[in-house]
Amino acid sequence: MSIIVQKFGGTSVDSASAIKRAASRVIEEKNLGHDVVVVVSAMGDTTDTLTRLAYEVTSNPQKREMDMLLSTGEQVTIALLAMALQEKGVDSISFTGGQAGIQTDSIHGNAKFKSIDPDPILRELADGKVVVVAGFQGVTEAGAISTLGRGGSDTTAAALAARLGAERCDIYTDVDGVYTSDPRYIKKAAKISSLTYDDMLNLAARGAGVLHPRSVKHAKEHGVPMTVRSSLTNERGTYINRTSKRSDRYPVIGIVFQDERASITLNGEDRDRGHDRQSVIRSILAARHIECDFYKNQQVTTLLIPHCDLKESLELISKKEGPIAFERLTTDCDLAKVAVIGSNIRTRPVIQGKTAQMLTRAQIDFQFIDDAPGSVTVVVKQPDMHRAAEILHTGFGLDVPEMRKIAAIH
Amino acid sequence: MSIIVQKFGGTSVDSASAIKRAASRVIEEKNLGHDVVVVVSAMGDTTDTLTRLAYEVTSNPQKREMDMLLSTGEQVTIALLAMALQEKGVDSISFTGGQAGIQTDSIHGNAKFKSIDPDPILRELADGKVVVVAGFQGVTEAGAISTLGRGGSDTTAAALAARLGAERCDIYTDVDGVYTSDPRYIKKAAKISSLTYDDMLNLAARGAGVLHPRSVKHAKEHGVPMTVRSSLTNERGTYINRTSKRSDRYPVIGIVFQDERASITLNGEDRDRGHDRQSVIRSILAARHIECDFYKNQQVTTLLIPHCDLKESLELISKKEGPIAFERLTTDCDLAKVAVIGSNIRTRPVIQGKTAQMLTRAQIDFQFIDDAPGSVTVVVKQPDMHRAAEILHTGFGLDVPEMRKIAAIH
Repeated sequence: MSIIVQKFGGTSVDSASAIKRAASRVIEEKNLGHDVVVVVSAMGDTTDTLTRLAYEVTSNPQKREMDMLLSTGEQVTIALLAMALQEKGVDSISFTGGQAGIQTDSIHGNAKFKSIDPDPILRELADGKVVVVAGFQGVTEAGAISTLGRGGSDTTAAALAARLGAERCDIYTDVDGVYTSDPRYIKKAAKISSLTYDDMLNLAARGAGVLHPRSVKHAKEHGVPMTVRSSLTNERGTYINRTSKRSDRYPVIGIVFQDERASITLNGEDRDRGHDRQSVIRSILAARHIECDFYKNQQVTTLLIPHCDLKESLELISKKEGPIAFERLTTDCDLAKVAVIGSNIRTRPVIQGKTAQMLTRAQIDFQFIDDAPGSVTVVVKQPDMHRAAEILHTGFGLDVPEMRKIAAIH
Repeated sequence: MSIIVQKFGGTSVDSASAIKRAASRVIEEKNLGHDVVVVVSAMGDTTDTLTRLAYEVTSNPQKREMDMLLSTGEQVTIALLAMALQEKGVDSISFTGGQAGIQTDSIHGNAKFKSIDPDPILRELADGKVVVVAGFQGVTEAGAISTLGRGGSDTTAAALAARLGAERCDIYTDVDGVYTSDPRYIKKAAKISSLTYDDMLNLAARGAGVLHPRSVKHAKEHGVPMTVRSSLTNERGTYINRTSKRSDRYPVIGIVFQDERASITLNGEDRDRGHDRQSVIRSILAARHIECDFYKNQQVTTLLIPHCDLKESLELISKKEGPIAFERLTTDCDLAKVAVIGSNIRTRPVIQGKTAQMLTRAQIDFQFIDDAPGSVTVVVKQPDMHRAAEILHTGFGLDVPEMRKIAAIH
């Protein structure tokens, strides 16, 4: 029988009534004749509440103990969802990450899967049960509880779907799909009906919060189609697979933006060491899980990081050792990123040219970031962010009416 | 090195500051040169909150899922206490029941220990760590999380102390020891400095809530001394061991009472079957974990149960099958129990006689319950309960000044 993995995020299980609604979703899928595995997050803001409690006890919680603490959030949800299913007459069983056979490395707080034993879940499915699995967690070889870090529950769902050979992995969330841009700010943003893994990866990598890149990578590697849909409505959502129906005539799939960025500019003694310096800084920050971008600002290499990581980054960089030695350091805290996304951006100079043209015409200051394939990203002043995104969204033909036309073609 | 097991109950860990205070207690003991194992309950009213959540989702939560849910309460506390110890520079590690090697049978919600593997804890102690263990829980052979039912954390502490060959098991709670009666109602109740296991078992069996009988049984079987003391003060508390310093001249150790009792009287067709009927009813109710006592009320056998179990008990008994068939059933909901406790009650008729004399003189209606050795118990009308207890407390020489005298002798 075919297996469907469903994942319900925090807002989809943030109360008893939300959990009952999630149970109904599970039963709909079960009634279609599928075996169903459900992955859930902690209820609403449970994780934040527990984190706050930890910081009331210590300023520097040990990561193993933090995992012990936070993993209870998902454990509460699995028990309640299993009960809600039983209440509706559907046989079900809840599993912690460890019980579900999920083994991770021992990097507490940011663990990665080492192996998934499918047998515990398959046994219960064979017994006719819905299996409810705690997302975001596993056990280390030593038997300690580990958590996967941000976006962990999506990753659990995608990894289980891959390991179980699931027919589909459905991510239920508080939005009804993936949009061409954030519809809270860009009024003409349109829901995308189908996307390739690569497009989704590019959107996620540049900050589209709806899915974590790790989860998309798992699905892509094993060719498991994903959907992103609302737990509140019956709308179709967004379908993610190897290929999509989108035409190559429309290389741009979306506009993503991230505010609260800060820059650090190092005026060094030796400009030739610029590249060396970049890779050293990148690895120093990566060790602390700080994401960074680089761009040229008046011929000097500048580093772009999330605002909240500024203090720590400055401390790390100020050690001034070896190739990252510098004479003078300046920062700017009022920045944002806007990215033009599309895995079909084969003609990068064309997209860059168009982007530059549109922003210049609108009198918005910008700098191009050293980008990965699949996106063209600019740094702008924070107050210009939404306007820049809107202009690019319109300019690259993503506004709602155009999207409807595209949908009509296929 | 000698091992001390400490247990902190819900009120002793109901906030970040309470957890820090508990950590200080642990460190005091550690600084005396002991290896310390700490068992904790869920914070404050967490268990009630989780239970309420379950009943919002279903009217009849499955016990396996209830255990999955409730066990998170203790898991939160162990993580926070381990963090609080680490914050104070003490190396520590938290263990769920399963990680601590505690295996139980599979009676979810009321599990019993099957085995405790001491190695996981001993390994960490050998490594210089304080081990913080979740009370009230274990794992079944199938790997499911189980809970021990009421008083479970005390039982975990006593069982671990026994298995680890601990020097002592200290129960930290919100009272500063075991009293001759409940000091909230009996103003002249006195703290008992030392008690035998049997005295403590009798007190606990008749409703002294400070310790659960199961935990005392574990300590008694393995000869582990226990103390009951406050987590808030430095007072000595009550010491429980094979022998106590109390003299046989004072056979009565305490007066225990329980309100909200209800009676069920069955007017049967065949009085000769009374005994049969009693044992059948007892086993029917025991299967649902309903405690019951029997007494003669105007020559008819009457059943005494907690008020909250009345509805269920009536349903069970009303099936009227076999030896428990009856003609007419009457109930009384306004009753209470008062028990005179002492393992040295060798001269039961004397104690019964004195009890009867005192209550009669005070014009309090009463009936003797069919009692176990170690207690003489009466049923009284609920409004008479505190007065009856007070009279017996004074009459059997337990009021504070007398107790001080006894303490002075030794």
